[in-house]
Amino acid sequence: MKRSFIIGVDLGGTNLKIGLLGSNYKIITKKVLSTRSFIKKEQLISAIINSIKALIRENRLSKKDLLGIGLGLPGPIDIKKGLVHFFPNIAGFKKVRLKRILEKRLGLPVFLDNDANLMALAEYRYGKARGFKNAVCLTLGTGVGGGIIINGILYRGSGFSAGEIGHIPLNEEGPLCNCGGRACLETYIGNKAVIKEAKKIFNRDISLEELSKLAREGDKRARLIWLRVAGRLGIALSGIINLLNPEVVVIGGGIAQAGKILFDKLRKTIKERAMMVQARQVKVLKAKLGNDAGLIGAGILVKEGSRL
Amino acid sequence: MKRSFIIGVDLGGTNLKIGLLGSNYKIITKKVLSTRSFIKKEQLISAIINSIKALIRENRLSKKDLLGIGLGLPGPIDIKKGLVHFFPNIAGFKKVRLKRILEKRLGLPVFLDNDANLMALAEYRYGKARGFKNAVCLTLGTGVGGGIIINGILYRGSGFSAGEIGHIPLNEEGPLCNCGGRACLETYIGNKAVIKEAKKIFNRDISLEELSKLAREGDKRARLIWLRVAGRLGIALSGIINLLNPEVVVIGGGIAQAGKILFDKLRKTIKERAMMVQARQVKVLKAKLGNDAGLIGAGILVKEGSRL
Repeated sequence: MKRSFIIGVDLGGTNLKIGLLGSNYKIITKKVLSTRSFIKKEQLISAIINSIKALIRENRLSKKDLLGIGLGLPGPIDIKKGLVHFFPNIAGFKKVRLKRILEKRLGLPVFLDNDANLMALAEYRYGKARGFKNAVCLTLGTGVGGGIIINGILYRGSGFSAGEIGHIPLNEEGPLCNCGGRACLETYIGNKAVIKEAKKIFNRDISLEELSKLAREGDKRARLIWLRVAGRLGIALSGIINLLNPEVVVIGGGIAQAGKILFDKLRKTIKERAMMVQARQVKVLKAKLGNDAGLIGAGILVKEGSRL
Repeated sequence: MKRSFIIGVDLGGTNLKIGLLGSNYKIITKKVLSTRSFIKKEQLISAIINSIKALIRENRLSKKDLLGIGLGLPGPIDIKKGLVHFFPNIAGFKKVRLKRILEKRLGLPVFLDNDANLMALAEYRYGKARGFKNAVCLTLGTGVGGGIIINGILYRGSGFSAGEIGHIPLNEEGPLCNCGGRACLETYIGNKAVIKEAKKIFNRDISLEELSKLAREGDKRARLIWLRVAGRLGIALSGIINLLNPEVVVIGGGIAQAGKILFDKLRKTIKERAMMVQARQVKVLKAKLGNDAGLIGAGILVKEGSRL
């Protein structure tokens, strides 16, 4: 039988998604676990392995049916060595040869890449960045990740670590970041920062989903939070747009679900702050593939392997 | 006779350089004029034309000896249309079809590009970026310009306007910039800003050259000014390094002449502020070709024309 199935894994600071992909990267089934329920590195790795095995078993597949496993990971990855440098938002991973560990325990080819790179790849092939030569893609989640398409190719940088949009400083001074830097965009508009700010303003725990809902219903405090997030993201993006002069910026992830209020303010800020030529040429779009972009990107990674 | 000479023009906010280049882009002779002595657009264009004509005449050449004229210009350029969008630091240029104007009045092929792009091209071929696949090059002058080499090719962006490192915001709020933005790096570390700060501190007019000399001699106030410039540039570069993961950053232009004090602080700041993986992989080097980089880049532009 032809090896036509792929297992995609999308590890975020909040959720661990594991999906079975069929032809054309169609997601047949997926599981979502909570990343934080696994405290130690070994627990998280075992959870990934067990979930993959369960997915194979439950779908009555055998290893021979699988092309391989692709993982999107929230941090810098050496894709050649299959090495995780570290994760800014998940403790315990330092110089982990995850490809080797997983291949040994699963007996299947494993490919790793940065999660935002895979989102960019998926949006470039099948989503809103399709047809553009130069694109900047962002995922706004626990971390703020980015992937860059240059001349139609995913640009990974000299050490496969390009695209860290979340770690562009927004100010000279500011909050210390998990990456070791200071005043990084992520410290202002990462999920945690937004939820923390909302808690302060509403004087209770409030989720991003509720915050988006409240804003849509016209709640002034919720709207103000989103306007501040969008303003800050817009300033950081203005710098990236001046630097890279892309045709499109595609934005996905939890925070992007805030929708119109976020995108309106974002476009307005870019118009005000970026250089005229670059600002006029860029489209700012909401990602098409949503939560599935990471899994689809992982599928592309497996199928196209080293040709990427 | 073979067309083997090229005329290169390097227009900056302060100086207008016009050079005659022989084989292998060797600069045979050059003239330097003060940009600010030409108040109107027409005067500046005439000065360029007259200087080129004089250079041809004085070197007993005829048009037949010339391959063409290359111009490095301090602002966004549409290189296909030969159009100057505008210059942030020279008034009067808005949507000027400079290629057409010069070709008509000189009867020679004319090629335009952004000055920092040409500096990057020259440093990549013959200077400190040579041998690296991904490089970020900066010129610190009246404006802060940048050129990006990606996978061995000058990356111009979708509308030929990539590389505007000087217009990355250093803070959310800050001084209004000539580009229309706010808190751009250039408003903090452009020549004008540094000279203005020095004047305040020394209570008299002081040139960048003197400021560099004083710093080398150990003057505390001068050292403090350079440390502040380098710290700010280092923060902005940390963001670019996190975003592009380049192998090398090459820095030229007037301010780079401050030398060791600037580069030491710059490397220290990048180590502190950029992400570990990217910071370790990047070299920060002083440009090799100095003031001639723009002319040499203009020469390469003419010789390789549309193949670039």
